[in-house]
Amino acid sequence: MARTIDLEHLVAGARRGEPRSVGRLITLVEDGSPMLRELMTALSGQRSRSHIVGLTGSPGVGKSTTTSALVRAYRAEGRRVGVLAVDPSSPFSGGALLGDRIRMQEHATDPDVYIRSMASRGHLGGLASATPQAVRVLESAGCDPVLVETVGVGQSEVEVASEADTTVVLLAPGMGDGIQAAKAGILEVGDVFVVNKADRDGADQTARELRHMISLGISGKDTAAWRPPVLKVVASRGEGIDTLREALDEHRAWLESSGAGALRRRQRARTEIQGIALATLQARFGALGSGGTLEALAADVAEGRTDAFTAADRIVAAVSD
Amino acid sequence: MARTIDLEHLVAGARRGEPRSVGRLITLVEDGSPMLRELMTALSGQRSRSHIVGLTGSPGVGKSTTTSALVRAYRAEGRRVGVLAVDPSSPFSGGALLGDRIRMQEHATDPDVYIRSMASRGHLGGLASATPQAVRVLESAGCDPVLVETVGVGQSEVEVASEADTTVVLLAPGMGDGIQAAKAGILEVGDVFVVNKADRDGADQTARELRHMISLGISGKDTAAWRPPVLKVVASRGEGIDTLREALDEHRAWLESSGAGALRRRQRARTEIQGIALATLQARFGALGSGGTLEALAADVAEGRTDAFTAADRIVAAVSD
Repeated sequence: MARTIDLEHLVAGARRGEPRSVGRLITLVEDGSPMLRELMTALSGQRSRSHIVGLTGSPGVGKSTTTSALVRAYRAEGRRVGVLAVDPSSPFSGGALLGDRIRMQEHATDPDVYIRSMASRGHLGGLASATPQAVRVLESAGCDPVLVETVGVGQSEVEVASEADTTVVLLAPGMGDGIQAAKAGILEVGDVFVVNKADRDGADQTARELRHMISLGISGKDTAAWRPPVLKVVASRGEGIDTLREALDEHRAWLESSGAGALRRRQRARTEIQGIALATLQARFGALGSGGTLEALAADVAEGRTDAFTAADRIVAAVSD
Repeated sequence: MARTIDLEHLVAGARRGEPRSVGRLITLVEDGSPMLRELMTALSGQRSRSHIVGLTGSPGVGKSTTTSALVRAYRAEGRRVGVLAVDPSSPFSGGALLGDRIRMQEHATDPDVYIRSMASRGHLGGLASATPQAVRVLESAGCDPVLVETVGVGQSEVEVASEADTTVVLLAPGMGDGIQAAKAGILEVGDVFVVNKADRDGADQTARELRHMISLGISGKDTAAWRPPVLKVVASRGEGIDTLREALDEHRAWLESSGAGALRRRQRARTEIQGIALATLQARFGALGSGGTLEALAADVAEGRTDAFTAADRIVAAVSD
C-alpha cells in the first residue's frame, strides 16, 4: 500500500506548509486521481476555516495585477496566502496564459505564498468543479486567505461567487459600464466592487453608475444586509489596495456576525455534493454509452425517431436500476 | 382534456406559421410547462432540418446589429427566419435588455421573421438548456435558418457551439484581439469569424491575427477539414453581410457533404438527452432535500463532519434505489 503511505506523507507535509507537498496534492485534485476521495476524507477531519475570496472580471480589467497587489497587502500582515488562478473559459486548451504568471512573479520566491493555475473544469466532467477541493488543500496548508481568480463574464462569475465567501468583481473605466455590468449579471454576485485603473478617464463615472445600480438592487432589503462598497484602485501602483483588504476583512466579519457565512458554506457544500453525485451518475451514462444505449438513443433523437425526453427517461431508468 | 386539444391546436397553428402559436409554444418551453414533454413528442415526428446558426461574441461587438443585417439578407432570398436571443449571462434577472430589441425593430412587422428573447438557463435547473426545444418550435414553423444569438465569453460560447450547426464568432477591432480570443477559447468553436466594425482602426490587424492563430490551429488537420474564414463586416451599413450569408451556406453544404453535420446533430442529441436525464435525477435530489437528507449532508460537509464524496455516495445510493 505504497499509495496510502505516500498520501499520508503528502498530507502531513502540506500541513507543515511544505510547498512541494501542497503542489503534489493539488495535482492529484486536478488530475482526478483515484486517491482524491481518500485525500478529501483525510482533509475533512480537521478543517480550518480560511477566508475564500473570489476575484472575477472581464479580460483586461487587471485581475492578476490586483491579485498580486492584494497578496502583497496580506503578506505585510504576516498572513500566508494561497492563490488559485482558475481559467473556466477554455475547456480545450486549459490553464492560464503566460502573462498571468509573469504578473505574479514577485511572489514566486516567497515560501508563504502558494500560486497555482488550474485548468477550467474539474476532471469530473464539468458538473463538479475541482476548485473546492484545491481550496481545501490550501486551507490545510494554513493559507488564509485563499484567493480564487477567475476570468469571465456571466456564468463563470456566478460560479466563482458560489465557491467563495467573498466575491470581488473588478471593472475598468470604459470597459464594463453600468449597463454591461447589469447585463452580465455581476451586480447580484459582487460583495465588493473594484474599479481598477482608477487613474483613467471615466473611473468616477463608472464608480458612480455602479453605486447607483447597487443602491437600486438593495433598496428593498433589510438594514442588516451587506451593502457592497465600490472602491477605486490603481493596482499597478498599489493604490487603494489596503482599503480593499480592509473591505474584505469587514465582509468576512459581517459573514460571521450575520450568520450569512454559515449559510454560504452550507449552500457551497450542497452544490459540491450535488456536482459529485451528478458526475457519478453521468459516468454511468458513459458506461451505458459504450454499451450502445446512449449512442443509439442519440441517433434516434437526431433522426427524429424519438424525442429527447423519452430518450432521457430510458437513461434514467437504466442508471436507477 | 382541454389541455391536449389546445396543444394540438397550437402545434397545427405553428406549422402554418402563425406567429401567435409559435410565441405561445416557445412560452411553454421557457416556462417548463408540464406540456413540454407532450409538445416535444408532437414535434419529433416530422422534424424538418433547418440550418441552426449560433452567433456569439463579447458585449459591444455588435451581435444584434449583425443578426439584424443577416435577417435582412436571408429575407431578400425569401427565406423565413427565426431568431432566438438567448442571454446566458444573468441567471437572476434573465431576458435581453431593451437595446437588443430596438436593434431588431426593423423586422418587428415582418410576418416571416420570428424574434424571441429567452432568459438564460432552461427551467430544468441549468443542466439542460431550453434552447434546443425553442429551436425545434421555430423549425416546425418553417424557419430556416434559425439564428441563435448569445452574449458571452468562454463557457457560453462553447454552449452555443454545441447547440448550433454553424457557429459565428464576432469580434471588433481593439476589443477581442488575438490573445484574448485564444484565452476565451473561441478559436476552437468558431466556424466563421466576423470582424465587425471593420471601418475602425485595427480591423486589419485583428483579422490578420485571427487568421494566423486559426492557421496554427488547423495546420495538423486533414485537407478535408473546414477552414474557418475571417470576414470583415460593417453590420450597421450592411457591408460584407452577403459574403457572410454565403459563408454560412457554404459551411452548411460542407456539413452535409463531409458527414460532420450528422455527427454534430448526434452529439447535440446526446448532450440534450444527458441534460434532461441529469435534471431529472437532480430533481430527485431536491425531493430528498425536502426530506432532509441533502440538507443534513450539506451541513455535515460544511462543518467538516464528513466529506463531499462520502455525502455524494449516499445521495447516489438514495436516487438509485
